[in-house]
Amino acid sequence: MTDKLQRLKDLLGEVWDLNMAAAVLGWDQETYMPPGGAAARGQQLSTLSRLAHIKFTSDEIGQLLDDLAPEAESWDPDSDEARLVKVTRRDYLKATKVPSDFVAESAQVASQAQMAWREAKATSDFSKFEPYLTRIVELRRQYANFFAPYEHVYDPLLDDFEPGLKTADVQRIFDALRPQQVELIRAIAERPQVDDAFLHQPFDEQKQWDFGVQVITKFGYDWQRGRQDKSAHPFTTSFSINDVRITTRIDPNYLGTGMFGTMHECGHALYEQGVSPTLERTPLGHGASLAIHESQSRLWENLVGRSRAFWEHFYPSLQATFPSQLGNVDLETFYKGINRVQPSLIRTEADEATYNLHIMLRLELEIALMEGTVEVKDLPEVWNAKMQEYLGLTPPDDAHGVLQDIHWSMGSIGYFSTYALGNLISAQLWERMTQDVPNVEAQIRQGEFGDLLGWLREHVHRHGAKFEPQELVRRVTGSEIDPEPYMRYLRTKYGEIYGL
Amino acid sequence: MTDKLQRLKDLLGEVWDLNMAAAVLGWDQETYMPPGGAAARGQQLSTLSRLAHIKFTSDEIGQLLDDLAPEAESWDPDSDEARLVKVTRRDYLKATKVPSDFVAESAQVASQAQMAWREAKATSDFSKFEPYLTRIVELRRQYANFFAPYEHVYDPLLDDFEPGLKTADVQRIFDALRPQQVELIRAIAERPQVDDAFLHQPFDEQKQWDFGVQVITKFGYDWQRGRQDKSAHPFTTSFSINDVRITTRIDPNYLGTGMFGTMHECGHALYEQGVSPTLERTPLGHGASLAIHESQSRLWENLVGRSRAFWEHFYPSLQATFPSQLGNVDLETFYKGINRVQPSLIRTEADEATYNLHIMLRLELEIALMEGTVEVKDLPEVWNAKMQEYLGLTPPDDAHGVLQDIHWSMGSIGYFSTYALGNLISAQLWERMTQDVPNVEAQIRQGEFGDLLGWLREHVHRHGAKFEPQELVRRVTGSEIDPEPYMRYLRTKYGEIYGL
Repeated sequence: MTDKLQRLKDLLGEVWDLNMAAAVLGWDQETYMPPGGAAARGQQLSTLSRLAHIKFTSDEIGQLLDDLAPEAESWDPDSDEARLVKVTRRDYLKATKVPSDFVAESAQVASQAQMAWREAKATSDFSKFEPYLTRIVELRRQYANFFAPYEHVYDPLLDDFEPGLKTADVQRIFDALRPQQVELIRAIAERPQVDDAFLHQPFDEQKQWDFGVQVITKFGYDWQRGRQDKSAHPFTTSFSINDVRITTRIDPNYLGTGMFGTMHECGHALYEQGVSPTLERTPLGHGASLAIHESQSRLWENLVGRSRAFWEHFYPSLQATFPSQLGNVDLETFYKGINRVQPSLIRTEADEATYNLHIMLRLELEIALMEGTVEVKDLPEVWNAKMQEYLGLTPPDDAHGVLQDIHWSMGSIGYFSTYALGNLISAQLWERMTQDVPNVEAQIRQGEFGDLLGWLREHVHRHGAKFEPQELVRRVTGSEIDPEPYMRYLRTKYGEIYGL
Repeated sequence: MTDKLQRLKDLLGEVWDLNMAAAVLGWDQETYMPPGGAAARGQQLSTLSRLAHIKFTSDEIGQLLDDLAPEAESWDPDSDEARLVKVTRRDYLKATKVPSDFVAESAQVASQAQMAWREAKATSDFSKFEPYLTRIVELRRQYANFFAPYEHVYDPLLDDFEPGLKTADVQRIFDALRPQQVELIRAIAERPQVDDAFLHQPFDEQKQWDFGVQVITKFGYDWQRGRQDKSAHPFTTSFSINDVRITTRIDPNYLGTGMFGTMHECGHALYEQGVSPTLERTPLGHGASLAIHESQSRLWENLVGRSRAFWEHFYPSLQATFPSQLGNVDLETFYKGINRVQPSLIRTEADEATYNLHIMLRLELEIALMEGTVEVKDLPEVWNAKMQEYLGLTPPDDAHGVLQDIHWSMGSIGYFSTYALGNLISAQLWERMTQDVPNVEAQIRQGEFGDLLGWLREHVHRHGAKFEPQELVRRVTGSEIDPEPYMRYLRTKYGEIYGL
């Protein structure tokens, strides 16, 4: 038994190394790679992902899992070992349905598509990206069909990001959420608007960078086990639990982008840095799902970073950093400004109240693309129509519309709803956490985040991918993914800011 | 036939991708990786090199090479295809003698040893590096024994860097060179010394960086297919002929380190950027050997970068960059200063006349380590004794002595002599080149390097690894590796500077 488990771990470790090598190549591609390197990089990533897939789907791993499964029944079901067998078996059964050549082709198309997307976005020319996205949608549909029969063609895609969750589950959650969000936004729109013009001024880039570093150092980001670089689209990536990197993007004329982006990515990174070392180099050695990941990034960005308590501590330092821009802006004005609710074009800069509408738009488009009811060539038009319908806005160009997100160029269709789910989960975790750390607000007011991070480490981070997202949420909070805590949070916060 | 050749290329391409991925991980390790990442990185590099080795030594590749070899006899022996089969067969026969697990272990030890070396050098504490180096020497001896019987235990190591060259060849070349170098240095020592104190002042780091960038841009370094970063020990690495990166190190108190280091690495990079695209993703898609590589780096660093013609063009710009440091230093004084001959401690900063003595010292120590006549623990003492004997100097600490070079920590024993051989070859190529480009000096005086680079591209770069080093030198110059042109170059240059 021990021999078989060790052999399984050795084989999975090899797959892990290949995946981590690919992650390094991906990080380099987004941060430092010169343009000429793109074609070869695509080929390298393709080879690595193909080899990782071949190795993971080997008969030997299948046999070891079959051999271990009955014995694992007798182990503590929450032990690392029992979960390793269970989760790996689930992933193995999925992976063996997908041919290695398909995986390689997808990786290569994604690599080229990212370059094309970058160029298309820079010139706001959707036609440069269209053929790549068309190919990606074809490949995603082909991918879904490896898992036929399914309830919905979108299910297999969603399952890659949220194991165990169905399209119908997400639609049900969103159906409960949508009217409440719309109602809240309508109520806010009837109240006098708060001012945030002071955020839109020139801010020295290096000082913005340094302030972000100061904040996330306080959060507990471990610089011995990570670093921050710049990229067009901020992301977090890890090459081991001891090398978890973030990137950020600084807007020289708007304070919000870099500041909240840095906190957001730090939230992801704290999760990965907090996974138990016993899970390293196994399929459990990373976050449980994208929604759980997003609950961490949004928690630090919003529930912490956009709270009054946080700024009671940090605002004097920010004011001292930017005296000419913020010297005459008092804390209350600043706090309201960073929480201003205003329908806007760019998802990553949307406020907490409108954010989920950006997600619903994308989810609907993804489902329509997969169902074939919308074609790629019509996407800019459909996007703009929905933006008008949901947010009352029309993008001036595709760079501020359909081309704004990197995700589709990476082949990541099925991903977006996890952002909204993450928002919901962040509020569920927060409500539960305040029972154990009742004075968390007072601590944050002192710039102390140790108890908060400790609680998250204990209840969420250390488990890695041992539990599926719904199971993890249930274990920690006692209920499934539920929109009510998030709506309570929004109503309380904006009720106070807008005097509802 | 075509099918078999294509299949061979596909398999070799996969091996290439794995090696290039490892190169990216290696680059990251030296430039940006946080300390925490080291252990996992060692494992990742170990896995990649083991898989590359397994794949390269597969029976299928062996069979394809056996099948193609007789047919390749009828092909143009200089064609890419014939050379691919020939060179790959040579490499295959070598590689199949080495077990994959040994390759993996060597990679992992090297990765850890590099971290240990960095720490040991920073604290000038050889004992922190000693156990790693001991293990590396054991592994290298074990490696040599895979190729027994051999004429000399050092032969198999040398052959990895200089295919076809024997320890006895190198010793014969050095035996011819040594007395001439010693004689020249003695003659110089009897002459009045030139001044270079002006090089040892504070120089703004960013301005040094920018000046280096300006120079290598003129040389023809293609920034679309490369980039420059900082590292403790400068190096060049390529992930394809379209992504060839260099690193540099700037000394804020000495102008020579960054300036000539940047030109040196650029010389390597121009070589890799100039390999024929038809050789990409095959074992021929990089430089022919380390000595040929070094002939390129030293040519640009010394024969160009330390020439009077070069500085007639660039010195006004350098003076304008550093007016307070160089405003009162005339061109002639500057030219002599950068060519000052002075026995010194650090190889990478040695002048052209004493450089080869640093190499001879290392070669002798490497041979002694491999023969077992010197033990690792005694290395600092033996190093210091030889430094005293050859250069009349004793290092103040091991950081300036035995710990100065990264090479041994990378497991690269057998490497150093290639630096001296590169010097010799650079002068051989230069003599030959001036027959085709007689006005090269006038061009350099105008800051024009196109004809020089074009000549190197045509005669050296584009061939990649098609020819073994001795063969390439013979094809281009008509003779084997020969110390005489280099000695003629040194005598002419220093005869004029020191009035011999």
